[in-house]
Amino acid sequence: MIRFYNARILTMEHGCDIVEGELWTQDDRIAYLGDTSDTMPAFEREIDVQGNLLMPSFKNAHTHSAMTFLRSFAEDVPLQQWLFEKVFPYEDRLTAEDVYAFDRLAMLEYLAGGTTAVFDMYFFPQSTVQAAIDCGMRAVLCGSISGTAKDVERLQAQYDTYHAMHPRIGYRLGFHAEYTSDESLHREVARLAEAYKEPVYLHLSETESEHKACVERYGATPTQYLDSLGIWQYGGGGFHGVWLDETDRAIFRDRGLWVVTCPASNAKLASGIAPLKAFRAEGIPLAVGTDGAASNNALDMFREMYLGTVLQRLRYGDAAALSATVLLEAATVGSAHAMGLTDCDTLMVGKQADLILVDLIQYNLQPPHHIPESLVYSGNRDNILLTMCAGKILYENGVFHIGASPEEIIADANSRIERLTR
Amino acid sequence: MIRFYNARILTMEHGCDIVEGELWTQDDRIAYLGDTSDTMPAFEREIDVQGNLLMPSFKNAHTHSAMTFLRSFAEDVPLQQWLFEKVFPYEDRLTAEDVYAFDRLAMLEYLAGGTTAVFDMYFFPQSTVQAAIDCGMRAVLCGSISGTAKDVERLQAQYDTYHAMHPRIGYRLGFHAEYTSDESLHREVARLAEAYKEPVYLHLSETESEHKACVERYGATPTQYLDSLGIWQYGGGGFHGVWLDETDRAIFRDRGLWVVTCPASNAKLASGIAPLKAFRAEGIPLAVGTDGAASNNALDMFREMYLGTVLQRLRYGDAAALSATVLLEAATVGSAHAMGLTDCDTLMVGKQADLILVDLIQYNLQPPHHIPESLVYSGNRDNILLTMCAGKILYENGVFHIGASPEEIIADANSRIERLTR
Repeated sequence: MIRFYNARILTMEHGCDIVEGELWTQDDRIAYLGDTSDTMPAFEREIDVQGNLLMPSFKNAHTHSAMTFLRSFAEDVPLQQWLFEKVFPYEDRLTAEDVYAFDRLAMLEYLAGGTTAVFDMYFFPQSTVQAAIDCGMRAVLCGSISGTAKDVERLQAQYDTYHAMHPRIGYRLGFHAEYTSDESLHREVARLAEAYKEPVYLHLSETESEHKACVERYGATPTQYLDSLGIWQYGGGGFHGVWLDETDRAIFRDRGLWVVTCPASNAKLASGIAPLKAFRAEGIPLAVGTDGAASNNALDMFREMYLGTVLQRLRYGDAAALSATVLLEAATVGSAHAMGLTDCDTLMVGKQADLILVDLIQYNLQPPHHIPESLVYSGNRDNILLTMCAGKILYENGVFHIGASPEEIIADANSRIERLTR
Repeated sequence: MIRFYNARILTMEHGCDIVEGELWTQDDRIAYLGDTSDTMPAFEREIDVQGNLLMPSFKNAHTHSAMTFLRSFAEDVPLQQWLFEKVFPYEDRLTAEDVYAFDRLAMLEYLAGGTTAVFDMYFFPQSTVQAAIDCGMRAVLCGSISGTAKDVERLQAQYDTYHAMHPRIGYRLGFHAEYTSDESLHREVARLAEAYKEPVYLHLSETESEHKACVERYGATPTQYLDSLGIWQYGGGGFHGVWLDETDRAIFRDRGLWVVTCPASNAKLASGIAPLKAFRAEGIPLAVGTDGAASNNALDMFREMYLGTVLQRLRYGDAAALSATVLLEAATVGSAHAMGLTDCDTLMVGKQADLILVDLIQYNLQPPHHIPESLVYSGNRDNILLTMCAGKILYENGVFHIGASPEEIIADANSRIERLTR
């Protein structure tokens, strides 16, 4: 058992209220949460957190982890040129071993930044599964097929292989996007979702041109077209959702679909600012993701939370457009639920111990007037003192406990990048 | 003498080209820059930087350092309510000692983030001067008077006191803004600028309402009105400049006036996105500032550089709107020049040794495809290994060398905040 004491605790069970007390973990779960107890069990470790903050870890609800290999590979070029000249040709050369190496590079950044779970969409899912298992994180894979009906066989096979293979691994039905697949694929995914009673996820209305091309192609927005095929009978969601219109949003609300917002990527690629204020007002559930390092370029949930609130002010011309705590909830509880993780979402006795310890004493979070808001507006990755997933400390005070050193992981990644990009 | 060897060096003398080699400092200046030499002097310290990056430190060209005391004091409220209920009443209670304490709190964040100089505009300039001297930073104070012609006496007195008092202290003529002063003040400042042959700075066209109110009041935009009074005969600039129109920009270009952009503050307060792409295309010199912690809330030049480029893509709908290196230059060389610092702007033999050592090996800057771009898109304060100002190491590997401990500084600030806000 591990004991954290002298803590401020943001359980996220009751909005952003903070309590004082202590938290104990046993194996992979939270065993106690409350005042200092008269009777103490034997602890393997007791950590005086000195008034710092325990809170649920971040969950990154949309990423392509292995795209770390293309971080800053091409910058400041138009979107189409970037994709067709600088991304796709290099992705074609990837091996399963490359993806494993680049996933591990991403995982250093996730863990140092307080993220313990990723909703990952990329090639070679077995590599991402292995990387997550090896380094102690959670990964929920999202189907990423494109093409036609016959490609859905691969989706089904992946689902069958991964959805229940390991306590920290999950799988969700999904496909890349409406514009990279045809109607036969969409109908077949809808059939599979119906058969498996499973939610479906995809890149959705990320750019205006993609959104409009669908209207030209099918006479309906991507959301309205796909909904008409019955793809979301069992829920799901869309990544980005920058261009969702009012009717699209009504479908999201009625079906309880998740919008996974990726504000940094949407800004860098000039895709736009998603209408989070409207989503919130209309009761649409909100989650947060970083997208891949090729288009972000950080894998940092602090950046996403910050942009998630401040960009709304620019979109709506209103300094009170969307409060910071909405983003804090979306980046933790919301993102967990979006990817189907309901057992590691908040801090509560019996739940999985997926948590972070945040340094409140550091200058950038001083004075401590409003702690949850301060985390969003001035929090930084370097406020993360400790990251725990399933009861295991994976990162603490700059040191990783993930089975390989950062030096090994970086050297391995770079030797592969040299081969891929020469 | 201090020797840095095995370095990548971004001198900023030739755009963003990086050379390999070593750099020596002697007292407060750069003594050598080049390949490993055959003849070596005696060094007091030799630092193997292991391929990491030496570059000019950041200069923060617009801030109100002592506003750290109001960080996250009031969040998610409309601008006018925030100012009149949550800022002004508390500022009225400040003493000179308070400002000193809150400046030092800011300086922890500046130095840990690689900033060695601030262009600071606030009450009690003597406090900011003392805090900068005590902790080893540079501060250029900017006149911040408001009111009428008689208030210009105070500006003149401050200029006389501070402009040449200490090698690391400067003073620039300035006033708060057009809308917080009357025409008699503006005319008197213009007269003083003429007499002293000095540039003039002020908050300028930060918000649309302020910009439009001036047009109603004087029949001209703030820039055109103030220029007609001859205020910028010897140059100067404007902080924010979000709403500068085409004619305003022509004045800025023709007079070589600096725009000091503060993208984070402009976003959080819903002021808008300054047209940096247009400034750049038209040859207007660009500097970068954080504004105060009450409205940012970080004092982090990485955030400003990042927002400086990505928000342009949202404003112009173009993923290639403004390249990252423009912001890297603006946050270092540009900001230095905007505040009149021409001796600590780049890394060159004979210049002041104001530099930072950046950890390139850390996961978030890997792989090292394009280093300058990567600093802007994924760089983080925690990549700063060392910050040197005037040849003195003020911050290294998490430890400050500034005459007081972070714990003392934070405790002092918090006891004062408790008194001020109760």
